[in-house]
Amino acid sequence: MAYARARTLTIEAIEASGKKITVYGWVRLRRDHGKLIFLDIRDRTGIIQAVVNPKVSQEAYKTAQTLRAEDVVEIAGKVNKRPESAVKAELETGTIELEASSIEIISKAETLPFDMGANELNLELPTLLDYRSIALRHPKIAAIFKIQETITGSFRNTLKKEGFTEIFVPTIVPSATEGGAEVFPLDYYDKKAYLAQSPQLYKQIMVSIYERVFTIAHAYRAEPSITTRHLSEYLSLDVEFGFIDNFEELMDMAEKIVVNLLKDVEEKNKKELSLFGANIPKIKSKIPKMKMREAQDLVFKMTGVDHRSEPDLDPSDEKELCKWANEKYGAPFVFVTHYPTSKRPFYTMPDSSNPEYTLSFDMLGFTEEWITGGQRINDYNMLVENMKKRKINPSLFEIYLQAFKYGMPPEGGFAMGLERITKDLLGLLNIREASLFPRDMERVDERLSKSEK
Amino acid sequence: MAYARARTLTIEAIEASGKKITVYGWVRLRRDHGKLIFLDIRDRTGIIQAVVNPKVSQEAYKTAQTLRAEDVVEIAGKVNKRPESAVKAELETGTIELEASSIEIISKAETLPFDMGANELNLELPTLLDYRSIALRHPKIAAIFKIQETITGSFRNTLKKEGFTEIFVPTIVPSATEGGAEVFPLDYYDKKAYLAQSPQLYKQIMVSIYERVFTIAHAYRAEPSITTRHLSEYLSLDVEFGFIDNFEELMDMAEKIVVNLLKDVEEKNKKELSLFGANIPKIKSKIPKMKMREAQDLVFKMTGVDHRSEPDLDPSDEKELCKWANEKYGAPFVFVTHYPTSKRPFYTMPDSSNPEYTLSFDMLGFTEEWITGGQRINDYNMLVENMKKRKINPSLFEIYLQAFKYGMPPEGGFAMGLERITKDLLGLLNIREASLFPRDMERVDERLSKSEK
Repeated sequence: MAYARARTLTIEAIEASGKKITVYGWVRLRRDHGKLIFLDIRDRTGIIQAVVNPKVSQEAYKTAQTLRAEDVVEIAGKVNKRPESAVKAELETGTIELEASSIEIISKAETLPFDMGANELNLELPTLLDYRSIALRHPKIAAIFKIQETITGSFRNTLKKEGFTEIFVPTIVPSATEGGAEVFPLDYYDKKAYLAQSPQLYKQIMVSIYERVFTIAHAYRAEPSITTRHLSEYLSLDVEFGFIDNFEELMDMAEKIVVNLLKDVEEKNKKELSLFGANIPKIKSKIPKMKMREAQDLVFKMTGVDHRSEPDLDPSDEKELCKWANEKYGAPFVFVTHYPTSKRPFYTMPDSSNPEYTLSFDMLGFTEEWITGGQRINDYNMLVENMKKRKINPSLFEIYLQAFKYGMPPEGGFAMGLERITKDLLGLLNIREASLFPRDMERVDERLSKSEK
Repeated sequence: MAYARARTLTIEAIEASGKKITVYGWVRLRRDHGKLIFLDIRDRTGIIQAVVNPKVSQEAYKTAQTLRAEDVVEIAGKVNKRPESAVKAELETGTIELEASSIEIISKAETLPFDMGANELNLELPTLLDYRSIALRHPKIAAIFKIQETITGSFRNTLKKEGFTEIFVPTIVPSATEGGAEVFPLDYYDKKAYLAQSPQLYKQIMVSIYERVFTIAHAYRAEPSITTRHLSEYLSLDVEFGFIDNFEELMDMAEKIVVNLLKDVEEKNKKELSLFGANIPKIKSKIPKMKMREAQDLVFKMTGVDHRSEPDLDPSDEKELCKWANEKYGAPFVFVTHYPTSKRPFYTMPDSSNPEYTLSFDMLGFTEEWITGGQRINDYNMLVENMKKRKINPSLFEIYLQAFKYGMPPEGGFAMGLERITKDLLGLLNIREASLFPRDMERVDERLSKSEK
């Protein structure tokens, strides 16, 4: 094909009042109003309304009568200011409309399996996923991943300013990174390998090269779980840095990232947030910190629920603590520190003043864990001993251990899951909605039961 | 630990002449010169020379005598200007040195298995990889991945300016993306899944959502090959966009990315490039274009080697063509277009004027393929027919096909491998050197034969 005319993006049409332009896009909606047909045309910058009047072009009108949602079209016409009474405030191009003088169909769509025209796409999740490639076109769903782009961009910008290097580490690994059996095995030529549960060990190694590193990495969890909180493949935003003076520094960096991230989403995604009626909280003072045991005490005092002898926080505890932080500090974020040694991975630094507990932390956000991290064991002998204590074979981790054998400063880091943060910011009900093509026990694009046939 | 004094980065020491500072880093080198000990200290910003004089501090001198390469230290001292004759031009901090008044060992290193002090690390690749975590600390090896960071950053910046959205697509897929058997199978719960050979199908789907998308994605190739050109896991820089007016637009975008990338590496990585004596070529005029059959003719004319009836270019042809472009246009880049339909994947758009050939292209760079791409089939029926012709079962690709069934504009895109570009820019001999932790048939960190034991 060759386009007859230069393209004007729908967002540019706002500045083209009185001019003749050509727009290209998808028919989002067709409304027949007696003698006029209205078309909402979607392109990458937004939506514009075209008015098709047979008095302007009989031919364009005839074509418009045949149009279906998601047809791809080229529409030429004149940009007119709308009368005051017809201005649509919720549309960026709401002050203008396009008076169509010609319409070409570039690609014809079949009839959609469901209506995509409304502001809400009220479908059950399985339907949303069975028709993922169509559902993603809905502006409200497409908005989710524009927000993710802001989050990863903000994460990257904050860290670059702090002297971090972006790295890319492998996802095929020789053994389970974090211990445990929840790992996907892989036929690697005639051997076995695994999908990385996290970039943890590699980012730690890289501290001895660049001191400060971050990576945006796919991570894989084979938990046989179909909860609304679990994905088999997710995006982990990972940070690690050396020469920390103390454990607090890690939380300061995590806080800086989150403060900037909230600000950036708020500023750059007004349009997307408005589709969800989402309000981004503002962190006004330092995020509060407390030890896990103190957190359990607090929950007990507030609710009477006694989890004080549990080795970890319960999801209901996390919810209570966020609520408490929101009421007391105006934002639903709280750092909980010093989780028990038994509940943290082998590389976690114990608290020297009480080695039953670790220099670890979670940052709770909204209702649940947003960030998990801590100081790591940087002493080679201590690390090897700790692995042995946990029945982990050090000889499977030689490349990792090298980094500690040959000089490693005090270091630590943390990780946050992109999908979970997105879900919370937008108030999504299921984490799958925050993954373009979510993988779980039951689905890899198609439902797995179906692909058997 | 708690640091006694605020840290000065080695690069900041340049501006601290006459002042007392404390630096933290790794001992890169110790040289004993009679009554003085010289230490090269490496941190994330560079290297500084510390002079340890027993007349300044007997204690620091004693500690310095025990230091080994890669020990992590804290050194306090006064920054002195070097006498003119002792200025080291090749070192950013070469005009100053640090007169050590105290040295603390933060983390002790074992004796290195090889000398890391020289400018070159003359080791065989297997040794480099057996000791990967140490070898990466060598400034010349560490430089490789700083350049990769520039490449990915440049790629992202160019595309963001062109209205592209960054996306993250899955790497666990239901079937072989590009056809062929060279795919890693995965135990996915009680089913089979595969590792993505490329983000191809997903980026195409995403054109119907954002029109213009890019992704930096891990891709996996199970080729049973141990050539210097092949990695089992690599990073693919992928671009896809819709509403293309013609096939040429794709090459224009690819060229824009490469021009910016070369400029950015040249500007931002002077220090790293100098370690390799690498000269970045400048693209002075438009990159030349020719059809594959013309390219074969040209090679025949230049060399007498007749590959004119071959269905694809040979590696030796690619080398010749790059040499030709370099001589004629001053840069070793050339677009070769219209590869035979039989040699391109099912989604490639045939040339309507001769459907034996496709609207595909490779951009050859240096000596080999840098970028591969083309226009895609955007018509649903044509796509399904093409799959059937190639014995690909369309019912395995329902989510993909949805994108075309419901309106898809003319579109295309391309992909480039990060490691290959890095290798060529720096003149590395083996692509494994351009991967932090390379995966191949024989190795996943450890040699696979070894991990059997």
